[in-house]
Amino acid sequence: METTKTHIVHGGTLRYLKHDSATTGTSMTLSVFTPAGEGPFPVLIWLSGLTCTEDNFTTKAGAYKAAAEHGVIIVAPDTSPRGEGVADDPAYDLGQGAGFYVDATQAPWAPHFRMESYVTGELIDLIDAEFPTTKTRSIFGHSMGGHGALTLALRHPELFKSVSAFAPIASPTRCPWGEKAFTAYLGEDRAQWAKHDAALLIESGAAKGVFDDILVDQGDADSFLTDQLKPELLTAAAEKAGQGLTLRMQPGYDHSYFFMASFVDDHVAFHAERLKA
Amino acid sequence: METTKTHIVHGGTLRYLKHDSATTGTSMTLSVFTPAGEGPFPVLIWLSGLTCTEDNFTTKAGAYKAAAEHGVIIVAPDTSPRGEGVADDPAYDLGQGAGFYVDATQAPWAPHFRMESYVTGELIDLIDAEFPTTKTRSIFGHSMGGHGALTLALRHPELFKSVSAFAPIASPTRCPWGEKAFTAYLGEDRAQWAKHDAALLIESGAAKGVFDDILVDQGDADSFLTDQLKPELLTAAAEKAGQGLTLRMQPGYDHSYFFMASFVDDHVAFHAERLKA
Repeated sequence: METTKTHIVHGGTLRYLKHDSATTGTSMTLSVFTPAGEGPFPVLIWLSGLTCTEDNFTTKAGAYKAAAEHGVIIVAPDTSPRGEGVADDPAYDLGQGAGFYVDATQAPWAPHFRMESYVTGELIDLIDAEFPTTKTRSIFGHSMGGHGALTLALRHPELFKSVSAFAPIASPTRCPWGEKAFTAYLGEDRAQWAKHDAALLIESGAAKGVFDDILVDQGDADSFLTDQLKPELLTAAAEKAGQGLTLRMQPGYDHSYFFMASFVDDHVAFHAERLKA
Repeated sequence: METTKTHIVHGGTLRYLKHDSATTGTSMTLSVFTPAGEGPFPVLIWLSGLTCTEDNFTTKAGAYKAAAEHGVIIVAPDTSPRGEGVADDPAYDLGQGAGFYVDATQAPWAPHFRMESYVTGELIDLIDAEFPTTKTRSIFGHSMGGHGALTLALRHPELFKSVSAFAPIASPTRCPWGEKAFTAYLGEDRAQWAKHDAALLIESGAAKGVFDDILVDQGDADSFLTDQLKPELLTAAAEKAGQGLTLRMQPGYDHSYFFMASFVDDHVAFHAERLKA
């Protein structure tokens, strides 16, 4: 990994990094915050939403004060492979910046769009190899990245101690963003889609007995709430399966980083408690 | 004033606004955070550095949690007039985005570049008229905006309860950024420059008996430290004049918003204490 920028923030060290990924076949960028001290520290992975790079969370979420206090490393990868020779689409919700944290099986996406394997394999291994980690980790994210955090944790529960989300896409098989992306990346067979749908995974009992609670914050003034996000599908699924899940509807909050910055301390504390249990 | 965007953040309301300024003869943009509740609240004005708009501080500084806790309004104006018909320069350190918080006397800048009058007159009046303020206020800023905060407070001590700065240009008459901008905006007569030089104003006793303390944070890994910022000129001037001034050299920190985000809570608390005294 090559360090492209370094900043001291809240007493810890923030690095912007890039590396050649064997999984995506591209150069991938990310940021890593390490608290002061020698560690080892547990790791919290952040997955961003549509159109984001690693920079949005890094500069806007205000998460590093809590990370420094709790002694947690925070890793924020980019949201997709990018660059020349990588497929793209002019729409903001498909292609570069919109990887949806799945491994694409369809042309033209399959060669590079392998974000599930990247995050759950290469990225985790790289962080454990290059930083002083406890080799334990949790995951959280926003919107498309909330979907990513939930589905990666539910599909790979052995990798994560806890999971939380801000305004996640609760059920991509039942909203326009998800239907469009899954058709493109996974094809027409909806049976394949169901394997990457947080509400359906919870309903199937995927996380039962693994995650004691799943924390979800959602602004009630979020313009994507009723058409795309549908958090009520998460609570319904959790009730059906007997899965612990706390949905906090936050009055007046929208879909922006101002919403996330307002509650990120709670999420870092939620994960720190479980990472250190 | 027209509200262009509204977000709830940390329980308060953040507005992006624009208005036609009689002072600059242009449309001016700004952001205003108001805590929850009816107020009235004291006001803290933030002045940004070179190349910034109101958006950099608003999205990156992480100041609104402390502002909500202390019950303080935060106002962040743009750093210059902008738009068609407004003079500009291709360099990042002159013209649009680089107003230096002075009233230009020289062509082609004089018609619109009147940031001192804008901030100390029209902006303050507008905020007091449109928001539930106590009609008391303090001021802080970064780099060029740290110079702005210091010089506006020292030149108009009746308007402000307190002043602080992050990595301010301590003495624009003695650094390349200041020499270039003051030549352009104020002309060749260095006697005019001295009226807008924080270190020289402190040395002349401008703030003595007005501000009990002036808080300055400076990263010791700031790449502009020795050539442009020169905080030692502030401490020397303060010692000479018997002015209270606390310079905190912060080890490892650079010139970025990560530095400001790390210490902004201290600055908001510093001002809140004096605004409520």
